[in-house]
Amino acid sequence: SGDEIKHEVFTITEATEGRNTSKKRCIFEKYVQPCLTELFGTSLFVFVGCASVIGNVGTLGVIQPAVAHGLALGVLIMLFGQISGGHFNPAVSLMAFLCGGMELPLLVPYIVAQMVGGMAGAGLTKAIYPTDKYAASLGGAFSVAPNALAESCLAEVVMTTFLTTVVCMGAINAKTRSPWAAFCIGLTVTANIFAGATISGACMNPARAFGPAVAANHWSNHWIYWVGPICGALVTVSFIRLMFGDQKTRLVL
Amino acid sequence: SGDEIKHEVFTITEATEGRNTSKKRCIFEKYVQPCLTELFGTSLFVFVGCASVIGNVGTLGVIQPAVAHGLALGVLIMLFGQISGGHFNPAVSLMAFLCGGMELPLLVPYIVAQMVGGMAGAGLTKAIYPTDKYAASLGGAFSVAPNALAESCLAEVVMTTFLTTVVCMGAINAKTRSPWAAFCIGLTVTANIFAGATISGACMNPARAFGPAVAANHWSNHWIYWVGPICGALVTVSFIRLMFGDQKTRLVL
Amino acid sequence: SGDEIKHEVFTITEATEGRNTSKKRCIFEKYVQPCLTELFGTSLFVFVGCASVIGNVGTLGVIQPAVAHGLALGVLIMLFGQISGGHFNPAVSLMAFLCGGMELPLLVPYIVAQMVGGMAGAGLTKAIYPTDKYAASLGGAFSVAPNALAESCLAEVVMTTFLTTVVCMGAINAKTRSPWAAFCIGLTVTANIFAGATISGACMNPARAFGPAVAANHWSNHWIYWVGPICGALVTVSFIRLMFGDQKTRLVL
Amino acid sequence: SGDEIKHEVFTITEATEGRNTSKKRCIFEKYVQPCLTELFGTSLFVFVGCASVIGNVGTLGVIQPAVAHGLALGVLIMLFGQISGGHFNPAVSLMAFLCGGMELPLLVPYIVAQMVGGMAGAGLTKAIYPTDKYAASLGGAFSVAPNALAESCLAEVVMTTFLTTVVCMGAINAKTRSPWAAFCIGLTVTANIFAGATISGACMNPARAFGPAVAANHWSNHWIYWVGPICGALVTVSFIRLMFGDQKTRLVL
Ligand SMILES: [Ca+2]
Ligand SMILES: [Ca+2]
Ligand SMILES: [Ca+2]
Ligand SMILES: [Ca+2]
Repeated sequence: SGDEIKHEVFTITEATEGRNTSKKRCIFEKYVQPCLTELFGTSLFVFVGCASVIGNVGTLGVIQPAVAHGLALGVLIMLFGQISGGHFNPAVSLMAFLCGGMELPLLVPYIVAQMVGGMAGAGLTKAIYPTDKYAASLGGAFSVAPNALAESCLAEVVMTTFLTTVVCMGAINAKTRSPWAAFCIGLTVTANIFAGATISGACMNPARAFGPAVAANHWSNHWIYWVGPICGALVTVSFIRLMFGDQKTRLVL
Repeated sequence: SGDEIKHEVFTITEATEGRNTSKKRCIFEKYVQPCLTELFGTSLFVFVGCASVIGNVGTLGVIQPAVAHGLALGVLIMLFGQISGGHFNPAVSLMAFLCGGMELPLLVPYIVAQMVGGMAGAGLTKAIYPTDKYAASLGGAFSVAPNALAESCLAEVVMTTFLTTVVCMGAINAKTRSPWAAFCIGLTVTANIFAGATISGACMNPARAFGPAVAANHWSNHWIYWVGPICGALVTVSFIRLMFGDQKTRLVL
Repeated sequence: SGDEIKHEVFTITEATEGRNTSKKRCIFEKYVQPCLTELFGTSLFVFVGCASVIGNVGTLGVIQPAVAHGLALGVLIMLFGQISGGHFNPAVSLMAFLCGGMELPLLVPYIVAQMVGGMAGAGLTKAIYPTDKYAASLGGAFSVAPNALAESCLAEVVMTTFLTTVVCMGAINAKTRSPWAAFCIGLTVTANIFAGATISGACMNPARAFGPAVAANHWSNHWIYWVGPICGALVTVSFIRLMFGDQKTRLVL
Repeated sequence: SGDEIKHEVFTITEATEGRNTSKKRCIFEKYVQPCLTELFGTSLFVFVGCASVIGNVGTLGVIQPAVAHGLALGVLIMLFGQISGGHFNPAVSLMAFLCGGMELPLLVPYIVAQMVGGMAGAGLTKAIYPTDKYAASLGGAFSVAPNALAESCLAEVVMTTFLTTVVCMGAINAKTRSPWAAFCIGLTVTANIFAGATISGACMNPARAFGPAVAANHWSNHWIYWVGPICGALVTVSFIRLMFGDQKTRLVL
């Protein structure tokens, strides 16, 4: 803060320069830093997520990826949430915008940053694992049993409804907001993976699906991981706008 | 809050309308929203619970359902507790009423909402899992070894005593209330499942038992999951009213 | 609090009665309630601990008992700590007394309450498990490989040093006290069980060892679970009194 | 604090003695106690870490060491962080110094204390485990598949970047600092072990690698666990100094 004090006794030219810097800094902190944060955070989340799926080969059940996804997400939201809100998930950004927790101009940049971050994280996973281990696990990409498309899509809707409800009630809705929201969100992902991993993989996040789909070039039934989470986000929006939101959030009564 | 300010300069007719709205809103927030919350929260809890039991087939032990039940419950209590208290369990509602943490008029509506929520959650589980996988796990319903009825019932009493004690000391009893109560409650469920899953299934919650019993039409020894948890709640009430409650809660001394 | 106001307008006889009640209540809250709390909390902890060991048969590793012990202990300390300090462990009570976190008159009553609680919890475990399953796991009692007595004893010393250091730094030492102490203590037990379960069983608590030793009548090498934890407590006391305590706790400098 | 008051009425000689004591105490609390804390905490962390790796033989996956490392580290940072910052890791100390969270004179003493602590913890592990079990697991030391050196090194860079980013954002960077930092750091270690244990072992900490390398005399590819974590720390420093730090931490804008 010594810098700021010095400006005041400098020449007019330098003060103007300071004002320009201050404006640039403002734009940086309001738009650039949040988008970079969404990109960086999503890449770390998708890296840990994909890598934990590959590292889980040979064990029973899905404890390792379930806990890894939940903890990585909880930690990232806790620390980066104060910069960008800590979405790391296009379905969350959509829900946040529709529930009044995010401004429109950031919506598309956030989703783009999340998708680029997903590719970066999935690329890092590809770089650290030997080709055979990577390919055997589809690089952490999702796949669905061909006779369970409708069930998988419904599972993604239900689980994303749970997840985005937790995000909205914990981090947006004023009456129920909590300092525990970050870990509530992460641990909801863990619980949902235990519930639905054997059906749809329990993705709940188009960016998490998109990254390894690009890196491993695996696209079969990829639409499920966009349609399911987006529908789940819309279910959450209607439930909260009509029933569970506080007075400011509810549309009626 | 701009809406509220406008009312003051409106015509008398509109002001009256505002007063009616305010009264309706009050009834909504005091009675309707909490009951809807108990229904919605119980359905998410029972969905994750039942689905995690089905998804656990093929692993060793009960880590996945134990952690899934505990985390889902902890998260739901943390966020919805501020609306309805976050019971999601008839045994908890009964204990809360008898320990002074809940008003009588809500007791029966809460229990009805929890049972309907249990059915909804179990129905969602049935919808996302293929019929054979669903049936092989009884849809997450509870079953007891025929030669262990008394042991199972006692186990439910002891574990529900632990659970409802944590609810009362963490969320009702003023001297020991804690902002950590939600996760204390959820993680007690996790610990109890590790303790008693191989005996009684570690239900501790009639709504959790009732939902999948309806959805899978499996009713053998169902009474255990009402008698055990209710007796556990009553044990907790007597211990806290006589020994562990604060001065206001204790009946003697 | 309506009761208190009424006393003021009552007759002298009733006011005296009030004063007697108040004195009795004071003794109850200072001595009786804490000891009952240590007994009750230890019985729940030992019940979950022993039952989780029996329920773990057939799995690989010790995840279930490790997490069950840690969560049950963390929850109990969080909620009952405000009444009794939440020791549930004679080694912790000894360390607390020697580090200035507990008054002498409560030391022996606490240890007696913990041992009785340990027996009660182990007895409940015996009551809910079939005889053969119970006996096959020694009822959750500890046993040591005959050629690893010294190693087991040393392991108990090291792990109890870790555990009691966490108790003292988190709950007694003013400079480092934390609202997270309860779960720090519980989760240290979890971590230590992962570290030492295959050597000594990772007991760290004479009451946890004593209860199932009585219930299952299994006493071989029982001394290790008194000598190890007590030595660990003494190591902690010397480290904290000499090096890690705050100015008030340190004996020199 | 009674001691301090007495000094004021003592003779000049004794007051001088008090001033000397006070100066010694100041040096002790600013330099000696933090270094001893780093040594002691690192030894407990490395003990639990190495022992949990040896105790994990015979299970599937790495849940036990992943959770043990994370919880032990989280607890130690929570309680000892208020004395020394709770680094227990040369890569963290380097990053903390370069991000402005630590003074230069402590850097080398901290790293030396951490390496000595690592040796002490690994020595304790060697003391409690039978020779054959100890040797079969390399005493918890790290090893790399010979055809995956570059991948392992990159994995250590990425995971240490994640870890040190969490340390800096959670404990140093003013805008995002959080009372949850300790467990955020520990649980990031857990998540990373799930991500990278099958490639590089997921060390992220030269002291954790150095201790068992000495105790088990296992040095093959040891350089990876210095180069990888140090590069990860430097990546974090550049990301935070350029992009994610608050205004005071960022070097530009
Ligand atoms: Ca409205
Ligand atoms: Ca009373
Ligand atoms: Ca002193
Ligand atoms: Ca600057």
